[in-house]
Amino acid sequence: MADSASISDRQQAKKVRLGRGWEPWPEYEAAATGLMDYWYPVAWARALKKKPLPVKLCGRDLMLLRDEDGTARALHDRCVHRGVKLSLGKQWFPGTISCPYHGWTYRLRDGELVAVITDGPDSRMCNRAAVQAYPVEERLGLLWVFMGEAEPYPLNRQLPEELVQPPAFAMGGRIEERSGNWRLFAENGFDEGHAKYLHRTSIWRIMKVMPTWNLIHIEKHGRWLYRIEDERFWEAEFPGLGKWTNSRWWKIKPHIKQGRSLGNTGGARRNNPYIEAQNFPGFASLALPGILRIAYPNFIHYEFYVPIDESHTRYVGFMVQFKKGLSRLIFYLWYLTGIRWMFHGNFSGQDHWMVANTDAPPERLYRPDESLIEWRKLFAGPHPLREKP
Amino acid sequence: MADSASISDRQQAKKVRLGRGWEPWPEYEAAATGLMDYWYPVAWARALKKKPLPVKLCGRDLMLLRDEDGTARALHDRCVHRGVKLSLGKQWFPGTISCPYHGWTYRLRDGELVAVITDGPDSRMCNRAAVQAYPVEERLGLLWVFMGEAEPYPLNRQLPEELVQPPAFAMGGRIEERSGNWRLFAENGFDEGHAKYLHRTSIWRIMKVMPTWNLIHIEKHGRWLYRIEDERFWEAEFPGLGKWTNSRWWKIKPHIKQGRSLGNTGGARRNNPYIEAQNFPGFASLALPGILRIAYPNFIHYEFYVPIDESHTRYVGFMVQFKKGLSRLIFYLWYLTGIRWMFHGNFSGQDHWMVANTDAPPERLYRPDESLIEWRKLFAGPHPLREKP
Amino acid sequence: MADSASISDRQQAKKVRLGRGWEPWPEYEAAATGLMDYWYPVAWARALKKKPLPVKLCGRDLMLLRDEDGTARALHDRCVHRGVKLSLGKQWFPGTISCPYHGWTYRLRDGELVAVITDGPDSRMCNRAAVQAYPVEERLGLLWVFMGEAEPYPLNRQLPEELVQPPAFAMGGRIEERSGNWRLFAENGFDEGHAKYLHRTSIWRIMKVMPTWNLIHIEKHGRWLYRIEDERFWEAEFPGLGKWTNSRWWKIKPHIKQGRSLGNTGGARRNNPYIEAQNFPGFASLALPGILRIAYPNFIHYEFYVPIDESHTRYVGFMVQFKKGLSRLIFYLWYLTGIRWMFHGNFSGQDHWMVANTDAPPERLYRPDESLIEWRKLFAGPHPLREKP
Repeated sequence: MADSASISDRQQAKKVRLGRGWEPWPEYEAAATGLMDYWYPVAWARALKKKPLPVKLCGRDLMLLRDEDGTARALHDRCVHRGVKLSLGKQWFPGTISCPYHGWTYRLRDGELVAVITDGPDSRMCNRAAVQAYPVEERLGLLWVFMGEAEPYPLNRQLPEELVQPPAFAMGGRIEERSGNWRLFAENGFDEGHAKYLHRTSIWRIMKVMPTWNLIHIEKHGRWLYRIEDERFWEAEFPGLGKWTNSRWWKIKPHIKQGRSLGNTGGARRNNPYIEAQNFPGFASLALPGILRIAYPNFIHYEFYVPIDESHTRYVGFMVQFKKGLSRLIFYLWYLTGIRWMFHGNFSGQDHWMVANTDAPPERLYRPDESLIEWRKLFAGPHPLREKP
Repeated sequence: MADSASISDRQQAKKVRLGRGWEPWPEYEAAATGLMDYWYPVAWARALKKKPLPVKLCGRDLMLLRDEDGTARALHDRCVHRGVKLSLGKQWFPGTISCPYHGWTYRLRDGELVAVITDGPDSRMCNRAAVQAYPVEERLGLLWVFMGEAEPYPLNRQLPEELVQPPAFAMGGRIEERSGNWRLFAENGFDEGHAKYLHRTSIWRIMKVMPTWNLIHIEKHGRWLYRIEDERFWEAEFPGLGKWTNSRWWKIKPHIKQGRSLGNTGGARRNNPYIEAQNFPGFASLALPGILRIAYPNFIHYEFYVPIDESHTRYVGFMVQFKKGLSRLIFYLWYLTGIRWMFHGNFSGQDHWMVANTDAPPERLYRPDESLIEWRKLFAGPHPLREKP
Repeated sequence: MADSASISDRQQAKKVRLGRGWEPWPEYEAAATGLMDYWYPVAWARALKKKPLPVKLCGRDLMLLRDEDGTARALHDRCVHRGVKLSLGKQWFPGTISCPYHGWTYRLRDGELVAVITDGPDSRMCNRAAVQAYPVEERLGLLWVFMGEAEPYPLNRQLPEELVQPPAFAMGGRIEERSGNWRLFAENGFDEGHAKYLHRTSIWRIMKVMPTWNLIHIEKHGRWLYRIEDERFWEAEFPGLGKWTNSRWWKIKPHIKQGRSLGNTGGARRNNPYIEAQNFPGFASLALPGILRIAYPNFIHYEFYVPIDESHTRYVGFMVQFKKGLSRLIFYLWYLTGIRWMFHGNFSGQDHWMVANTDAPPERLYRPDESLIEWRKLFAGPHPLREKP
């Protein structure tokens, strides 16, 4: 016979519990250092020269190098002899890299050990050892590495569809190493909840009202999850507390087009025809292995959350505008003078701040977290990219 | 049939063994991050404003905040949603704190979730989640937090009795984060052995002789352990080595009052009547959860060893003089120009140096360590403060 | 029925495996923090004064101190009372050290506790506790400590034989704390493979050709392993890749004496008679517990790889020339202006760079690694130094 005090104690205890783990999504929980058998953008193509570039991807040390014919190559960055990093070595013979310690020399194309300088031409080690080679592609000014041991499928299959054969376009972006697990960055990117609240103070939004809250649902089309807004509330009256709004007299409300809006906060007289032609069901979309796409009326913003290791993520963010001629030039100017520091710096830095401070699981999810839950479910498969013929 | 050499070897082996652990005091060994259900001073009251103050106590992250009516509040510094620190957030509505990430808003008084800004007024999370709230009191210019989940007893019950309703007094002190476990600081504070030897070089004692050694015993009165001096030796002749003394021609020996001395190193013509009226059985006393009291003829010095985590301690040290009028002013002057750097700086810094260098257990205890042993026994209980009605 | 593709896959998998561990040499694997019951040089003798010198050796904290009669002493650097380092203490009585915390006073000669200042002359602890004392010898300007608990054998038995009663000599050297396990430094020092390749760019070799590769074998004479060169190749043509050589028009090939060469890279008209009289079977030799000897025509270079802990090594390198009078003076000049930075700095720094970057085991060994394998076998014993009467 429990009295009301002890019932209230139990209720209170339930309220203050820290939350739940990720047990409902075991494949998600297991993916701490990333997903195998996917293409990942790791660096700007123009940054790769003849000098080896060490890159950590999915917890593994890689070394990228531009071969003398200009082809980019990637090898496991560890000589099998004594474990020294090949990226400390030199290219003595075309198409190879030699370890700095004893001159073990690997073919860049396939990682095969083709010579051991300090063991003479008759060394018995040749063709009996190798380091793993990773397929590399150059697209959109980026270097893409296929991480895994399976036969790679074409990069085109994984690129956002509108970027496979785009019309003339301009592009600007930023690559940055960040603290925090890649899954938390992906959750942050697709999260409806924080956008309006955390980013209300960003310079990027200084002239524009952000809603106080909204109702959304998630739809899956092909391999993409779309976050779709059902209703938007510019202010709210919280019982017993008061009113909250981000509206200010100097802030502009976005131009809402009838039917469906492209961009829940921006506004434009005319949407870009190529973007409009994509018929995106929603403003924000997310796909494996951690690609976020935000469609604005006149450009699209992409974020790739590339796993470095369990607690670091390579942020690869870029914006693409599908125009040519003078518009292109103006876009570059606008990118370099504005977007780069306001959006890829200040705005995106707020996300970095929160992800680095996130301490989940355990966690308690709420209504807008439907976006997170649908994303986590993707990990259980099917994985159409990998499984398609 | 062991020969004398092997006997001597075994004896030598026994001598060089590192020592013993803390197995005889299992409750003591278990208290590495502190004792639950006690009040702890954590900060100066005047340091707490409207801005959240993060404080770690007994291994747990807390956030202190002064409510708009001036009341100090303490919450667990972790939003239950995604684990972000509430101390990074803002106070939008009176009596609440909002998480910076999604605007989850908690009532400061009891930690209840009362609004979720990004989920609208009808959010189902409200009143279904909470963070733990911790009782806070302001006394003696300090903020005291009750750490634990039990119903708090009044702070008065735990304060040194003479501070519950003191006459007019002046007070000066220092709060400092230090390296080392809180139990080692408490042992150091109450330790008879080191005082005369380690501190002989402190500026605080530069004009005063410290004894070479003395004989003590420990008495328990109520919840306090008292260290009582039985005999004092100003010098000693160590057989085969020579004489050792701290006496120098310029150093003064303390004024010993007949019967019982207040202060084993200081001297005074006249003891303060309020201090004398306490009838302390000894100069130094110690109580749970780590409170040291050193009664000088004209003031009392207190040290609280507040656990931060297993290897850090918040040192809260202050001196209280029970006088009024001009004497009070003189005390403040003397505190600021002398005591603060000599005693709470240089002298107490020697203790910090030793505790940070202590590597025990294992250990070998000696005669003066009776003080440590009695202190460790306290942990087995009874715990009168917690158990009283 | 495996098709050729899958066979090739399996072969490739075998090639890219990381390599093997050190299971074939269990005593070697167990010696991560060093070998017990050996003498180790730890510091320059002239660096030891009356002030205690803390030194970590084989994972253990020691304290060295020069007694008032000039004798060097070593004790375990940990007071048995509360674990404070004795090296923080002072010498109050001749032949002793007192802990700074409570004045526990140990005899330097044997570590016996002979007084406890804060417990008076009748302290019961005296002669009932001790810290371990370690034998110390001064030779060749170095302090040698016998690490272990066995009865020490004479240092002479372990010194390179030619240094036990050398004729007049000059000596210059360097002691440095380095990152990396001591076993990897020993393997590096005796390794034939890297010498010609890694060090080709060192200033020490700037005027001299290094071979491209050579054939060697290892011989054991007494407790020394000798690396003996069978054939030397100044250049090599690697099939499908091209030629590789270190020859340049400005570089000099070494002077090869008929029969046996002293020094595989240096050259001299006349070998030093004392060195020649040693009849070293090879240029490079290695002995337990990690002593490398490189015999040049006119001087001998020694390296001791002294274990600090699992991941740090004290490099003790010195060169000895067996001459007197003016030649000696010239050697000192040559050491200070040339050898010191070129050899003990730049050249030896290349080794440090590689050892700090070695990530083995796992590993794949090749022909020149016979030197490593023979070295590792030594650890299984017998250990003639320790076992001799």
